[in-house]
Amino acid sequence: MTQPTEDADFRFATVAIVGVGLIGGSIAAALRERAICRTILGVGRDTRRLAAAQRRGLIDDLAVDLSVAASRADLLIFCTPVDRIVAGVREAAILARPGTLITDAGSVKGVICEGLAGHLPSGIEFVGSHPLAGSEKQGFEHADPNLFEGRVCVVTPEPGNSSDAVERIIGFWESLGSKVIEMTPQAHDDSLAQTSHVPHLVAAALAATLSSENRQLAASGFRDATRIAGGDPDLWTAILSANAEPVLAGLRKYEATLSAFRDAIVAGDIQRIRDLLATAKSIRDA
Amino acid sequence: MTQPTEDADFRFATVAIVGVGLIGGSIAAALRERAICRTILGVGRDTRRLAAAQRRGLIDDLAVDLSVAASRADLLIFCTPVDRIVAGVREAAILARPGTLITDAGSVKGVICEGLAGHLPSGIEFVGSHPLAGSEKQGFEHADPNLFEGRVCVVTPEPGNSSDAVERIIGFWESLGSKVIEMTPQAHDDSLAQTSHVPHLVAAALAATLSSENRQLAASGFRDATRIAGGDPDLWTAILSANAEPVLAGLRKYEATLSAFRDAIVAGDIQRIRDLLATAKSIRDA
Repeated sequence: MTQPTEDADFRFATVAIVGVGLIGGSIAAALRERAICRTILGVGRDTRRLAAAQRRGLIDDLAVDLSVAASRADLLIFCTPVDRIVAGVREAAILARPGTLITDAGSVKGVICEGLAGHLPSGIEFVGSHPLAGSEKQGFEHADPNLFEGRVCVVTPEPGNSSDAVERIIGFWESLGSKVIEMTPQAHDDSLAQTSHVPHLVAAALAATLSSENRQLAASGFRDATRIAGGDPDLWTAILSANAEPVLAGLRKYEATLSAFRDAIVAGDIQRIRDLLATAKSIRDA
Repeated sequence: MTQPTEDADFRFATVAIVGVGLIGGSIAAALRERAICRTILGVGRDTRRLAAAQRRGLIDDLAVDLSVAASRADLLIFCTPVDRIVAGVREAAILARPGTLITDAGSVKGVICEGLAGHLPSGIEFVGSHPLAGSEKQGFEHADPNLFEGRVCVVTPEPGNSSDAVERIIGFWESLGSKVIEMTPQAHDDSLAQTSHVPHLVAAALAATLSSENRQLAASGFRDATRIAGGDPDLWTAILSANAEPVLAGLRKYEATLSAFRDAIVAGDIQRIRDLLATAKSIRDA
């Protein structure tokens, strides 16, 4: 095995992107546009999709064999659904060269970082990441080289990580335009339950409550409020399952707030309704 | 008193808009652009705001005295907050000429139609309306002549309305580009509780639950899901209070759906979570 190489001109010689969808494709596009690496390797199960991404110019080469791809990469980024990241990283680490860095873009960090800390071969480091970017759209066809520009990316180091590895992963996301915030995996999961996972549930429940005869009466407000419910059910099932406890805690907090609104309406307490709405508006406007 | 006049070239000679904000201003702009009436009269409490709307070309003339305005109008449209519509219409009807039509743009219809049916002088008819258009923006500065184009407007006749009055109000909204749906006031309120009022509560509770330390982690999904919570607290307090029973019924239905999601997460039932999310997505996508 040879040590990873880094060209003087590039931060990483070869970056392997595992899962070339909206996020993976956007990372590839950003790497290309900003000349951050020499070679972009796309890794996935579907050769035809990878070949299409290559024709589009997003990736230089493709691989369906994760081990082979890992042996060629200086940095691997897992952009697969969160329930496939731990197994994927463990598999990739077997043939990765010492010094190879691995990160991900998963929306949940606890189960992933716990599932990998202490389980990787010496010299291979995993540092968890979560770029807060994306949309309900799917597929590399919607890839956007500026998707991460000015957006927050949470990086979740473990005690076992070297400061060098953490700094290089932070530097990687910053090179894509992200504003990096360091958090523990658990703090990340608690916060994201509140800012993303519970909102997804709330929007999905709202969409599911709409009866068919009322669809024609749903205007732009309803569409906005339920937009995130258009996300992929498989991806979100994995996220909600992997972050169940923080999500349930966030849901309890949300339901308590909603109950305060209900109680005020039941009581006909105009002033209280107004105060609750004004508080919500001030937070929303901020 | 003279009878209302209608020019051969116009559907109504003089249209009085009571409350020249986003909705009232947009009606004015649409009337102007489509040459639907000869004179647009703006009515409100704040002379300076009305004068500004006149300078902008939205209205031809202004009035702070509702009675005087009513005596000049062939059609009055109340675009005030819902808790001021009944009193305003009753006041206007006193000096209105026989044959004058009155409608509104309020988000709640039951309390308004009940509060007016049988309470107006002979020859003066009120037919309730609710154009499903608008945004969290406020003020005539955001007026848009195409706000109603292709959007639904619910018209809610009462048994006491003449078919001629109902047809003329329907024709009015259609002339602004709306797709008109006739409903009873109560059916409107039940439906709108589900498609608009409960979504507002849901979004407001979500915004209110966000802790300040998590604000930087709220991405576009959170912003979309809470956008409607940016609406005016006074307007929404009036709407929620005026439609309390249907809102509480809609809230119970919503909370039952949310509980189904919670139960599936508590049980770790992956298939059930996925089914619930898929159902929500299919309704949302429709």
